[in-house]
Amino acid sequence: MKEIEGGICAVAGVSAYGVKEGKYGLAVILAEGPAAGMFTRNKIVAAPVVLTKGLLETRPRLSAVIVNSGNANAFTGEEGLKDARAMGRELAETLDLDPESVGVASTGVIGHRLDLSRIKGQLPGVLKGLEASPAGSLAAAKAIMTTDTFQKEVAVELKSGIRIGGIAKGSGMIEPNMGTMLSFVYTDADVPADVLEAALREATALSFNMVVVDGDTSTNDMVLLTATGKSGVKPCMETLDEFREGLTYVLTTLAKMVAGDGEGATKLIEARVKGAKTAEDAKLAAKAIVRSPLVKTAVFGKDPNWGRVIAAVGYSGAELDPEKVSLSFAGGAEEVTLVESGKVSGSSGSLESLKKVMESEEIIITVDLGLGEEAATAWGCDFSYDYVRINAEYTT
Amino acid sequence: MKEIEGGICAVAGVSAYGVKEGKYGLAVILAEGPAAGMFTRNKIVAAPVVLTKGLLETRPRLSAVIVNSGNANAFTGEEGLKDARAMGRELAETLDLDPESVGVASTGVIGHRLDLSRIKGQLPGVLKGLEASPAGSLAAAKAIMTTDTFQKEVAVELKSGIRIGGIAKGSGMIEPNMGTMLSFVYTDADVPADVLEAALREATALSFNMVVVDGDTSTNDMVLLTATGKSGVKPCMETLDEFREGLTYVLTTLAKMVAGDGEGATKLIEARVKGAKTAEDAKLAAKAIVRSPLVKTAVFGKDPNWGRVIAAVGYSGAELDPEKVSLSFAGGAEEVTLVESGKVSGSSGSLESLKKVMESEEIIITVDLGLGEEAATAWGCDFSYDYVRINAEYTT
Repeated sequence: MKEIEGGICAVAGVSAYGVKEGKYGLAVILAEGPAAGMFTRNKIVAAPVVLTKGLLETRPRLSAVIVNSGNANAFTGEEGLKDARAMGRELAETLDLDPESVGVASTGVIGHRLDLSRIKGQLPGVLKGLEASPAGSLAAAKAIMTTDTFQKEVAVELKSGIRIGGIAKGSGMIEPNMGTMLSFVYTDADVPADVLEAALREATALSFNMVVVDGDTSTNDMVLLTATGKSGVKPCMETLDEFREGLTYVLTTLAKMVAGDGEGATKLIEARVKGAKTAEDAKLAAKAIVRSPLVKTAVFGKDPNWGRVIAAVGYSGAELDPEKVSLSFAGGAEEVTLVESGKVSGSSGSLESLKKVMESEEIIITVDLGLGEEAATAWGCDFSYDYVRINAEYTT
Repeated sequence: MKEIEGGICAVAGVSAYGVKEGKYGLAVILAEGPAAGMFTRNKIVAAPVVLTKGLLETRPRLSAVIVNSGNANAFTGEEGLKDARAMGRELAETLDLDPESVGVASTGVIGHRLDLSRIKGQLPGVLKGLEASPAGSLAAAKAIMTTDTFQKEVAVELKSGIRIGGIAKGSGMIEPNMGTMLSFVYTDADVPADVLEAALREATALSFNMVVVDGDTSTNDMVLLTATGKSGVKPCMETLDEFREGLTYVLTTLAKMVAGDGEGATKLIEARVKGAKTAEDAKLAAKAIVRSPLVKTAVFGKDPNWGRVIAAVGYSGAELDPEKVSLSFAGGAEEVTLVESGKVSGSSGSLESLKKVMESEEIIITVDLGLGEEAATAWGCDFSYDYVRINAEYTT
């Protein structure tokens, strides 16, 4: 597997474009094939999620996706659902597509009706720009951004020749059930929908579902995976394993970008928990670390306050024996063990090393629970003044 | 029931004092009688919690409590437990008390050994200052503060003549299992330990356990209730109900002080959830609102972004029907309904009213789930720049 340029448009059969006017963006991605989706578990489900989930349940196949940013079309009742349908139908009619094959996604403010006239106004420009080249992927990735500070794209080519590419947006309001608000992933593998669904479920669990920015779960989260089949390769056995690995790599790369671009983030935090008794324990502990506001502010302040990690694991719900826990921090070239099998390192050198680690832009926190064989990794970012500023000023 | 002055020293049989030198405080409270305690549910349990919980399990009776601030004596292993015992014994030997009747509590940084010599050095000054007057309660309440910006004291006198008084500390690292790091409550009622325990459990569930500052649960949380019996009143039937109400009032008042004094807080948020199908649903939803970083930053920024409340209830785990939810905000003299049975208020006036509400120092958010009869109230504070500053700089 190697990383390649071009985002989603590195995948044969995918063309894309997008425009952004102030807060309000619109992107369209054209790609025909079997498709699978993962959706928010929030009980308030935005209209586009209801619509797109319903489409895929009826027939797991997409020909296009239309995405707007600036308005989430969430908590908008029956009218909201009508608006989401109208948005999809507008694209379908213009391009003569089956409206039942057009996915719709939205991101932005909750509780306001969609401005359909703005979307209809932006659509011709988007369609005119559609292209099957890196610039098309980039324009779409930029159009779906809200408080994101950079676009999120990645593509890989597998040994079998299959390509997988994805874009994502999302920086705040991100939590356990779905790591990013929106991600659109494409492959030119020739894969039926049920295999796509299984692979997407597994890859999402290891990537987007392990990202925590602020503990809030959006009403709009959605990950869609479409297979154009244009490579002509039908993955099976080893090449299927490679496909699943490639998909997990693409989703994990996007998930880490989402985590590192958390609102106001200055650092990426990776929490690796091993030695857990159960897989669930490992996940609980890893997520508790990257979710803890006290850990996140300590990382922001480069404060070597490692006790907060121990406290977070303590309340995570994971089984824990204080006398078996080990804890280390790594960042840059520096690595320091602070606790080994429950014994706190007494050396003043270790606190000095930890201070050096805290200067790094990527902090890896490793906790060994010493109770079993299970492991999990979660990603998050620090909590800065800018997180507060961005979120205190979002709608006003 | 009426509020009276004097804090814990309003209760006959209680004398107290404390000193504070920089970060490091020491308080002693003398009061003899049956006692009950509630302790952190974090799996990393600080040494003083292990010790004091063990004492009360063996014999539910206290003669004194010694409390230090500045060092939590948590994650300090066997030595930590020895240090906690030595701290209690120092007081017991000086005053000729049974060491098994001296409760010990600590608050501060995790993972560092206690400096016993400092505590021994401060103790004579504290003992010299001990007094059964408001000044004694105040000194103790101040000595146990860490990042608290004001001391937390309250006392009431019931119709039956019984008095109940409490002090508390705690502003960050506070979450569901116990709302404050430390609270010491006294009554002159003549109550056996098992009745105290039941009343304390109930009152804690309605007060400290409904406070969320940042979602982190401390390793050191502790609430102790001691009954001196000096009023000579043995509450039973109606007077017992009044005692339980009085205790809940004292704990709720302290809990709201703790919430309003959350690190960096500028506003108190009260989330009232009603119409829930189950009591558990009501609690989940109320806590999710006051825990949500997005709600907290919106309140800090006076941003009328009510959709975040809906999203938080949506992921809280509480049963929810979007078409039955109602939502209103109140603050000062202003009250505004934003959603009624799933319908969003269309008037632009309501957003203007909400902006006025957001100017208030106490914001009351009421959610009616419209599904049943259960209700719950939770308290929290907003999330400000100062929360980040305080926690980014805590140990360094």
